[in-house]
Order: sequence, then structure tokens, then C-alpha cells
Amino acid sequence: MKIIAFYGSIRDKGNSETLADFALQDLDVTNVFLRDYHINPISTQRHEDGDYQKLIRKQVLADIILFVTPVYWYGMSSLLKLYIDRWSKTLRDPSMPNFKEKMKAKEVHLITVGGDEPYIKALPMIQQMQFICDFLQMKFGSYIIGKGDKKGDVLIDKNALNSAAHLNHYFKNQTNH
Amino acid sequence: MKIIAFYGSIRDKGNSETLADFALQDLDVTNVFLRDYHINPISTQRHEDGDYQKLIRKQVLADIILFVTPVYWYGMSSLLKLYIDRWSKTLRDPSMPNFKEKMKAKEVHLITVGGDEPYIKALPMIQQMQFICDFLQMKFGSYIIGKGDKKGDVLIDKNALNSAAHLNHYFKNQTNH
Amino acid sequence: MKIIAFYGSIRDKGNSETLADFALQDLDVTNVFLRDYHINPISTQRHEDGDYQKLIRKQVLADIILFVTPVYWYGMSSLLKLYIDRWSKTLRDPSMPNFKEKMKAKEVHLITVGGDEPYIKALPMIQQMQFICDFLQMKFGSYIIGKGDKKGDVLIDKNALNSAAHLNHYFKNQTNH
Amino acid sequence: MKIIAFYGSIRDKGNSETLADFALQDLDVTNVFLRDYHINPISTQRHEDGDYQKLIRKQVLADIILFVTPVYWYGMSSLLKLYIDRWSKTLRDPSMPNFKEKMKAKEVHLITVGGDEPYIKALPMIQQMQFICDFLQMKFGSYIIGKGDKKGDVLIDKNALNSAAHLNHYFKNQTNH
Repeated sequence: MKIIAFYGSIRDKGNSETLADFALQDLDVTNVFLRDYHINPISTQRHEDGDYQKLIRKQVLADIILFVTPVYWYGMSSLLKLYIDRWSKTLRDPSMPNFKEKMKAKEVHLITVGGDEPYIKALPMIQQMQFICDFLQMKFGSYIIGKGDKKGDVLIDKNALNSAAHLNHYFKNQTNH
Repeated sequence: MKIIAFYGSIRDKGNSETLADFALQDLDVTNVFLRDYHINPISTQRHEDGDYQKLIRKQVLADIILFVTPVYWYGMSSLLKLYIDRWSKTLRDPSMPNFKEKMKAKEVHLITVGGDEPYIKALPMIQQMQFICDFLQMKFGSYIIGKGDKKGDVLIDKNALNSAAHLNHYFKNQTNH
Repeated sequence: MKIIAFYGSIRDKGNSETLADFALQDLDVTNVFLRDYHINPISTQRHEDGDYQKLIRKQVLADIILFVTPVYWYGMSSLLKLYIDRWSKTLRDPSMPNFKEKMKAKEVHLITVGGDEPYIKALPMIQQMQFICDFLQMKFGSYIIGKGDKKGDVLIDKNALNSAAHLNHYFKNQTNH
Repeated sequence: MKIIAFYGSIRDKGNSETLADFALQDLDVTNVFLRDYHINPISTQRHEDGDYQKLIRKQVLADIILFVTPVYWYGMSSLLKLYIDRWSKTLRDPSMPNFKEKMKAKEVHLITVGGDEPYIKALPMIQQMQFICDFLQMKFGSYIIGKGDKKGDVLIDKNALNSAAHLNHYFKNQTNH
């Protein structure tokens, strides 16, 4: 079982990344910090597109996809949304046949941290992720919502840390198979 | 009363734009097609930022903000989300004092069109927009969800067209004051 | 095509009923005002249960089910919820075989009116109804959210009235087949 | 700090009650099993109303209100909803002055267990509870969603048990003050 993690934060070592560290510790993971890549909005014009193509090929090889994003304006970050929006083009890309079929077997998890009542105000993002998974017939395995604003805040959200430890345990069981 | 409309589609003359045309006809509107601008993700690095700065200054001058976006992956487009994500930096931008205070008086409307059960699957986006408005104490005046996939599809969504005509009537009343 | 309408209001001629009148005019409909029936909470004790049994038998004969409920405390009325909660027992009731199978072909519509920002605050109820329909594989055809507090208020919600007229048109087309 | 817990299940010792036991252990709590009371739907007719009046008076004396309900048809049980629906009348009841004012200082928690993807499909109920709390200006302190269908199932939902233990710890800290 291969795990790929996509990080949507524009900050290094922010709260969502910190929480994900607990979920991923001692695991072999392909980490993708989306801020390090240049992804173009979907476009009808021809364009250089090397970064996106590299990432989507990595994604297809994974069994488990972990999305890690801060709650920005009550949704996933635009960096992450841009990456997902690009899937629309991949669905019609002849150089990437059967994308939908390939995604079908995968399991998605989501870790997010927000500062403003995230347990309530991140719920639309959770519901959105369920619809995304439904469309590609992926399994939405779990989500963790943490609370934090300044760097390190999430370390005092014991509930979120417990859930991340629990997810770590689950991932270890899965990847031993 | 000044109206500014932000279009999040990556396509020209798509369904969401078509539906917005009904809501905006015979009105004096500042139209912003976000695909025509280059906006950087929020970043700690210095960067050229002329497009965003130009747009946010226009936004501050408007009384009514209309967001027009297709439903992409069960949320607003990443083009629109990127624009909104940038507000975080504007909130702390000394060259743009009292941004939050200035937004407070404004009224937001949302027009969106999706192909896959949008009346249900666009609802998380509606809820997200409410939270965005709450944060800046803006009034979320109304939303219209239309159904459509291929160009022009929305023209047979009579309910959505009725609602757009109704919104047009409302806008006209407002802008006469 | 047979239509049955269940009314969850505890008031006679309230706003949700008024709005439903527009959707149902000139149609042959079985109207069930739930306040006129005595339904017991699901219970392991033996009990008189004539009213519920009568209603569920009517429901099974219909092709289209219209739920009409005020927004009470940001959800459907407890009268309506009680009726739906009772379905759990019917699913296991040997005197009512294949209940799930029978419901599968049906189409559900929902009309609701609320006083406190219903366009936003009734959305959880819409999402709940979608899950109810999914469970029984019913089609959630449409919903109309109206605004109103005092009796008759909904008559000035032009958007809701338009939608009700549109639904009436749809029902008429369906029942001519 | 006084805690009152309202149980919406129609079953004795079901999963939601089991999960609540963890949250409430070694605490002095007023437990109200709604199935043991007879509450009338709000009604314009005169009626015997002793049970509801007794309960609402207990509620007003508490500082913390814990709602414990199974997920029935993707919402709170009708037993619990009926109890909450009755608050509308209490808001206008001269024998119960300042009900809204009295509720304002209170803190609400919610424990719920469902069998069908509750982490997703109980979210509308969570959002509804937030709106209920907003209306009365109560604080929605936390919620726990557990998974379980048959009696005792929730005992293997480690995440939910952790959260219940965490809530127990929180309650103990609060009630020591």
C-alpha cells in the first residue's frame, strides 16, 4: 500500500502539516508540497504543464491519498483546489487513459486545521470532499479537523492529536499488507 | 450603488456567465473575468502583484459583489478561491487599511451552475460563502444554483432563469437609489 | 401518477401549506395533515397503531411524495420526523413486505418555509432529505425554500412562488402520463 | 456547574447512551430519557402538559446541556426534536419569562451514533444544532459522532471513545469550578 500526501498550505510547517506529521510518522510516504510546484489553471491554450503531469502520475501510483490543507476561507486552499480542478482535464486526456477507473480503487483521507470554529465551519469542505470521492468512486476513509491559528496551536488540540495517532495506526496496518 | 462581478470560470461564455447575463442585463457593472488576470498564491516571498492589487481596489469601491462561478469539483473554481484566499494578506496590508471595515457594508450574491446534481452538491459552496460573509460581516443577499453541463444548457433551467430575472429586478431597484 | 402530500405543520393554513397550495393547484392529491393523526414513537411495546398503518399504506400507493413542512428549529417538524422515524419499523414489518423495494421507484419533493434566513438555515434539512432518499433509492426531485414567519408572509416571496408554479407545471405534466 | 443530559433514543442502553456513559462517568448528571415522558406536539388546543413543563424547568437550571441521540434517518430522533420544537411555545410562555435570556449562558454538547456513514451523514444534524445554539446564543461546545448499528457496536469505535473520554475530562474540570 503506497501513500501519497498533498499539502495545500502556503506556509512551511503550519498546523495542518504538523497534524499530518503525527498521522504519517514512521511511514514511507510520498510528500507533495503543492506550493513547490507551478500548476496552471485548466486552460484551452497550450501550456507548459510538466509539474502537474508529474504529480498526477505519482497520484495514480498510490493506494491512499492524504489531503492536508489549512481551512482557508472555510474551504480547502486554492493551491489544493487548483490541483483538483486540473483533474477535469485529465479525465479527457488521451495520454492518461482510464484515469477515472484508476482512481476508483483509492482511499482518500483529509486532515485540516482552521482557526475559526473549524469543527463547524470546515464541515462544508468535508461534504465537498465526499462528493469528490463519490464522483470518482473513491472511498472517503476519514477526516480529522484540528483547531489552530498560530504555528503550533494544533499541538494543544488533544482530540485532533488522538485522531491523528489513530490514523497513523490505521495506515501502519494497511501498509503492512 | 455600484456592482462588481467576479467570474471564476476558465471558459468564455460558459453557463454561469450566461446565467449572470440575465441577472445583470441593462445594468452598469464592473465585470472581472479572473481568467484574464494573473494572481499569485499568498506567499511570504516578494512578488509582482499588480493584478490582484488592481482588483481588490475595485472591489472596495463596489457596494454589491456578485460572484459567478461554475461548480468545479463541488466548490467554487480555484481561480475564484485564489482571489478570495488573497484577502488574508489584504487584511494585514498596511497599504490597504480598514479592509475588514470597508467590506462590512457590502452585499454579496452568488450565481453558480453545475452539471452533477447542483441543487444538492453545490450546497457546501453556499454554506462556505455564508461563512465568508459572516467573517467580514457582509450580507449574503442571495444565491442562484443552475443546472448545466454543455454550453447553453442553463437556458433550459427555467427556475434558474426566473431567479436571475428576479435578481435583475432587485439590482435595478437597488441601483436606482 | 399519484401524488401524496404530507404536511408537518402544527398550524392550519400556515406558510408552508400556502406555498404547497400553489404547487398542487388543480391536481388530484391525497393530502395528509399529520397533526390530525396520532402516531406513536417507534417502540418495542405493543401499541395501537392504526393511524400510522393507514398512512404508510397510502404512501406506498403513491408515485410522488411531497413533504411540506415549516422550518422548525432548523429542521423538519417533529410531526414529520416522527412519521419518517416510524419507517424503520416498517422496514422490518412482515405485514408490509418489500417496503424498501416499493419506495425505490418513488420521487420525493420538499416544500419548506422558515422565518430565519431559511435559504441558508434550511440547507441541512435539504441535505438530510437527500440522505433519506439515497437510503431508499428514491429520487429527490426538487425542493423549494420559502421565507415567511407570520401567516401569509410567503405570498411576497416571489422566487418561492415562481418555483411553486414551476413545480405545479411539472406535476401536471407527470400526472398526464 | 450542573449538567443535564437528554436522551433521544427509543431504545434502552443503545449505542448513543453507551457512548454518553463514557462522557458522563463519575459525574453528577440529571439524566432525562425522553422516551419515559409524554410530550405533546405544540398545539393551539389546551392540553395536559406536565411532563414538558417539568423538563424545561430542569433544563433552565443546568449550565451544560448534553443531547444524546441516535442518528435516525440522518437527523436527531423525533423524540428529541419534539422536545426542542416545544421550546417555541416556551419562548412565548408568560409563566416562563426570559427563557431566551436564561438559555443564553448555557453550553451545549451533542453525542450521536449512527450506522450508515455517520461521519458524513450526521453532519447536517451538527449544522442544525449550531443554528439552534446560534438562535438562543448558546455555545455549541463540542460534538462526538460515533459509528454503530447493533447494540455495543460503538465500543469498537476507538476514536469516538477517545473523544468521549476527553469530554469527560472537560466536564470534570468544568464542574469542579
